[in-house]
Amino acid sequence: MGGTDIERLIALLARLPGLGPRSARRAALALLRQPQARMLPLAQAMEQAARSVRTCSSCGNLDTRDPCTICTDPGRDAGMVCVVETVGDLWALERAGVHRGVYQVLGGTLSALSGMGPDDLNVAPLLARIAQGGVHEVILALGATVDGATTAHWLQDRLAGSAVAVSRVGQGVPMGGALDVLDDGTLAAALMARRPA
Amino acid sequence: MGGTDIERLIALLARLPGLGPRSARRAALALLRQPQARMLPLAQAMEQAARSVRTCSSCGNLDTRDPCTICTDPGRDAGMVCVVETVGDLWALERAGVHRGVYQVLGGTLSALSGMGPDDLNVAPLLARIAQGGVHEVILALGATVDGATTAHWLQDRLAGSAVAVSRVGQGVPMGGALDVLDDGTLAAALMARRPA
Ligand SMILES: [Zn+2]
Ligand SMILES: [Zn+2]
Repeated sequence: MGGTDIERLIALLARLPGLGPRSARRAALALLRQPQARMLPLAQAMEQAARSVRTCSSCGNLDTRDPCTICTDPGRDAGMVCVVETVGDLWALERAGVHRGVYQVLGGTLSALSGMGPDDLNVAPLLARIAQGGVHEVILALGATVDGATTAHWLQDRLAGSAVAVSRVGQGVPMGGALDVLDDGTLAAALMARRPA
Repeated sequence: MGGTDIERLIALLARLPGLGPRSARRAALALLRQPQARMLPLAQAMEQAARSVRTCSSCGNLDTRDPCTICTDPGRDAGMVCVVETVGDLWALERAGVHRGVYQVLGGTLSALSGMGPDDLNVAPLLARIAQGGVHEVILALGATVDGATTAHWLQDRLAGSAVAVSRVGQGVPMGGALDVLDDGTLAAALMARRPA
């Protein structure tokens, strides 16, 4: 396949989600045909992003700043927190442009199968913000799976003693890393149709 | 979407063949989650490949050496030349492991629509090798399209005066950048079933 450097490039590309061996070869070919115009700019964008990416210590978003652009946006309602499983879910909601508050990215759900317990969820910053009285609404946008429902119930229990209103987005919507497949209108409708949990 | 560095990375990934905006975001997220373990190694593999890639001056293959590994392999029959449209076709035939000779990558076909004429095809090295008497068989593995057929006929005309046997791979096989979608057995059968042109 033309040298170990090229084989290594194909192997690394093939590990990306959504790229199998075949599409990895096709992508590698496209890059190899234009090393200066296409491959080097992509390589440099990756190095730049790898150097600059931070996990927001407040919400768990990935950004080049910590706290992230969303958490520091004065135009957002910091008292309305949408709880999602993944950064991909957060990005999907941001593309839809329907949530005017901030987020909490759990980084997963409670899961007996994969051994994820409460300590493995990124939930402490949310609880701290609530304890400080800075939160008036928590919107749970978790997956409509057993693990998503378990996590939602656990969070409701944790928040039961506080004065925070807890709501859940409309059911039947695939959440939990799968928000990405929804069009913006459906996402907007799901968020509008949230109901008290 | 978390900083211009991240947006730029997603935009560049989305330009790769086979990656739409959605899969580009998913790939970017996977890389951003592991900047040291995944993103930097891929960036470095790209820079390394961009620095080392060469177009073989003999056959048109992409490799880290010129002439390429195939052209310089003493175990191959340099007198049996398989003519393909793209490097992707060459790679597909190599994966199938059925061609024991060398290649000529035209880089396209004659095409009135896209204005590709004889001078735009990488065919001079093949003609030179034939003029030197070093070739006994030319196998045309071109696309079963109008342009592929036109190119095959034009090449046959060019070789008509020589003592070279010209054959074509079995018809009905999608060639021309599309060999990639065939399993190895089908590719092998197509090459075995070549007939005199
Ligand atoms: Zn944040
Ligand atoms: Zn070569």
